[in-house]
Amino acid sequence: MHRLQGTTVAEASDVLAAEEPLEIRVGYGPAAERQHRTLSITMRTPGHDFELAAGFLFTEGIIRSRQELQGILYCPDVEKEEERENVVRAELAPSALPDLPRLERHFYTSSSCGVCGKTSIEAVHAAACPVLPGSGPHVAAGIIHQLPERQREAQALFEQTGGLHAAALFSPEGELLLLREDVGRHNALDKVIGAALLQEMLPLHSSVLLVSGRASFELVQKAAIAGIPVLAAVGAPSSLAVSAARDFGMTLCGFVRQNRYNVYSHPWRIVNETDGNV
Amino acid sequence: MHRLQGTTVAEASDVLAAEEPLEIRVGYGPAAERQHRTLSITMRTPGHDFELAAGFLFTEGIIRSRQELQGILYCPDVEKEEERENVVRAELAPSALPDLPRLERHFYTSSSCGVCGKTSIEAVHAAACPVLPGSGPHVAAGIIHQLPERQREAQALFEQTGGLHAAALFSPEGELLLLREDVGRHNALDKVIGAALLQEMLPLHSSVLLVSGRASFELVQKAAIAGIPVLAAVGAPSSLAVSAARDFGMTLCGFVRQNRYNVYSHPWRIVNETDGNV
Repeated sequence: MHRLQGTTVAEASDVLAAEEPLEIRVGYGPAAERQHRTLSITMRTPGHDFELAAGFLFTEGIIRSRQELQGILYCPDVEKEEERENVVRAELAPSALPDLPRLERHFYTSSSCGVCGKTSIEAVHAAACPVLPGSGPHVAAGIIHQLPERQREAQALFEQTGGLHAAALFSPEGELLLLREDVGRHNALDKVIGAALLQEMLPLHSSVLLVSGRASFELVQKAAIAGIPVLAAVGAPSSLAVSAARDFGMTLCGFVRQNRYNVYSHPWRIVNETDGNV
Repeated sequence: MHRLQGTTVAEASDVLAAEEPLEIRVGYGPAAERQHRTLSITMRTPGHDFELAAGFLFTEGIIRSRQELQGILYCPDVEKEEERENVVRAELAPSALPDLPRLERHFYTSSSCGVCGKTSIEAVHAAACPVLPGSGPHVAAGIIHQLPERQREAQALFEQTGGLHAAALFSPEGELLLLREDVGRHNALDKVIGAALLQEMLPLHSSVLLVSGRASFELVQKAAIAGIPVLAAVGAPSSLAVSAARDFGMTLCGFVRQNRYNVYSHPWRIVNETDGNV
């Protein structure tokens, strides 16, 4: 590649964030009538693919627990070898009853106008988000300030490519528990939640999540489904993200950078060291 | 909301970027057997919804020209009034033959494992992107440096919310032609391309596109489908974005900020004022 600084041109090389399609398939039903389906194709940074698939299945409501997941593998019957690591198959327990129609409605709906529409828009608003416990945790206001720096320290790859989003899970005391990166913001969070699911850490009622970009409705929704009570974003929240966080009982912080941030909902979890509650 | 600066807490209010679901429906087929379908639900910033729908239909390959689009309207048969502006219906010309199976494959595939997979992954790679003309345009290297500032000047809303992505179309001389914003990067680009489609400006063979975030594969693909020969991103490109830009004959610039940038593909379109080609 060519690097231009002002009018000076230099040849240079650069480390790029990898991006490849990942197809997520799911096997379900009793052994005798086992069925397989492709649920999603997402552009993602390769790595932690099983966690990504597990997190996707959980946050989309296809599985509700670790126990409904029998196993995850790279799909062995993909013809081209170079594509095999781009197709992941999640085998659900025979007893699991995945809510596939819900997912289908979410991505693609086939019906006459005026019937499906209301249902699908409402499905977005009324996704099955349990309201978070009103009991805690409490996080010292100063801890939130420190999270971006702690995330950056852990993000070796980010420094190289500048192109990856990160989602990081911390304890209420600011200790880093899990960090995942991806070209896609939602994927980074699905990887974190999938890792927590596979390690049987769910629900994450005693954790603080930091995301590197903006706080969108979908990130709030995914975090709520995983039981995360405090979501901090380096970027801005959207209006729907704020109203969803209010509804779900989630503490939402935005613009967490340069020693300042805003608290948009449920500020009672953020405790000022000297004066008590914010 | 509460604003924390260090340990100082102040109550404050903030302008948030709006985010609402938009459902895109399509009507197609001859009058006697007219069919309607929901194609997509996307979280978007309200505004320019018809452009967003038109751009989505075009970049997903559902329509190939302005002529295939008979009209776009807010769906009148949505029950709740407050949801009516979140459902857009595009009526295709009766003669249009939308490639709906292709879209269906893209979002959601129902088939046995091992059959569909290869097809769908290949569909991502081999999307119908015409190779861009090898004849131009030529852009002075210094023009690229100026684009982010010109975009920022035009982005009144961005300054308020800090939460919106932008896509801006410029002439090769750096004159701003179109600017659209959205909470979603892909939506901002679909709005630009939809606006161009509705104004019969396609293909955009004599234009330069600036996007505010990273350059992903999907942005490169959408730009290529619209015929945009030069894509500049304020953020980093992914590896797949670079290889796609090389394949499509597109000039891809990344990290366009602070008077520097990198050119990752087809640098011959960028011309150094003093020495000729980069």
